[in-house]
Amino acid sequence: MIDPSVQITRLREKQRTDRSELDALLDSARIAHIGLVRPDRTPVVIATLFARDGDRILIHGSTGAGWLRLLQAGAAASVAVTAVDAIVVARSAFESSMRYRSAVIFGSFAVVNAAETLAALEVLTEAVLPGRWAEVRAPTAKEIAATVVLQLPITSWSLKVSDGWPDDPVSDVEGPAWAGIVPVSEVRGTPQAAPDLRPGIPIPPSLLAPRL
Amino acid sequence: MIDPSVQITRLREKQRTDRSELDALLDSARIAHIGLVRPDRTPVVIATLFARDGDRILIHGSTGAGWLRLLQAGAAASVAVTAVDAIVVARSAFESSMRYRSAVIFGSFAVVNAAETLAALEVLTEAVLPGRWAEVRAPTAKEIAATVVLQLPITSWSLKVSDGWPDDPVSDVEGPAWAGIVPVSEVRGTPQAAPDLRPGIPIPPSLLAPRL
Repeated sequence: MIDPSVQITRLREKQRTDRSELDALLDSARIAHIGLVRPDRTPVVIATLFARDGDRILIHGSTGAGWLRLLQAGAAASVAVTAVDAIVVARSAFESSMRYRSAVIFGSFAVVNAAETLAALEVLTEAVLPGRWAEVRAPTAKEIAATVVLQLPITSWSLKVSDGWPDDPVSDVEGPAWAGIVPVSEVRGTPQAAPDLRPGIPIPPSLLAPRL
Repeated sequence: MIDPSVQITRLREKQRTDRSELDALLDSARIAHIGLVRPDRTPVVIATLFARDGDRILIHGSTGAGWLRLLQAGAAASVAVTAVDAIVVARSAFESSMRYRSAVIFGSFAVVNAAETLAALEVLTEAVLPGRWAEVRAPTAKEIAATVVLQLPITSWSLKVSDGWPDDPVSDVEGPAWAGIVPVSEVRGTPQAAPDLRPGIPIPPSLLAPRL
């Protein structure tokens, strides 16, 4: 569903309205940039871990974080999730650009109630390392009390996707310059043990699973 | 220089005030998330290419873009540049986190004057592909007229860096769970020629240079 308030006004041909495309982006990215307006009316952007849980976005943090308190108080938020997929190398600087997927979800966050907090923390943990939740001890009551989990319904959103090739004018296509793309991707490297890891503890399955 | 207004209030031990650390992040990242407040007082976040040019941030876009017009009109902005360097895999979900570098630059953008626009576009192009500017034709007057370049002085900023190991309590260190990090990095793949590339045009040096 697209709220009319979030129709894209520029480069409309790049707008996508298929929820499954949005979900694919939200499920592959781990960092959201959340914009909000401070009480003095200036904007601020916070980068934070997020996860999609069905029709909502989950974030979490310390009960002491000021920006989370603003969100808890119902501040309007703009949640940007962005992936760069390639550099588009056109035959001119003007036509050069990026292949990207850029989503923004609008709304106000609400606190996840205490009964659901543990399940929400599991979703956040599993979004980073599927299988990790079962490998670690359960959170203590004190840890849960120190954590606030917020949710934002995925109802008002926009998605803009650029996935084409250079769109050079004929005069440039006939010229001497190369054109194409350079793929960009995020990769995970070899796990490195902590300096204080006790001997004999193997790298767990959650870190060995194949991933993007 | 750190403006007192941007002292970090949470996790202060992660704040960095060394400008060279800020510059290293700004020079390795290509996407900024710019927060601003719309006339109706709601926040919006825009992901866009940026480049550092000495003591300023440069961005550009179409003269037709609404968010650029807001910035041109002097709207207060919050520019977030974020890099995730690793997943910090602690022995509990609670202590698990990320290694990251997170900068925010505050201020109002100003239009780069016409005489400097070409040089600014060169900086933006070279930030993505060093050497590319000399490989392509010069922008036409029409292309320059269709582009607006904005600058933001790097005077009011904050930088937060998390680069440590899991900080588990002794009771967890003595337990059975693994701990360490999983490095995360962005990589560029093999260039792919555009479908309409004329035969015989080789991949240019700007794409063959070693890079992150």
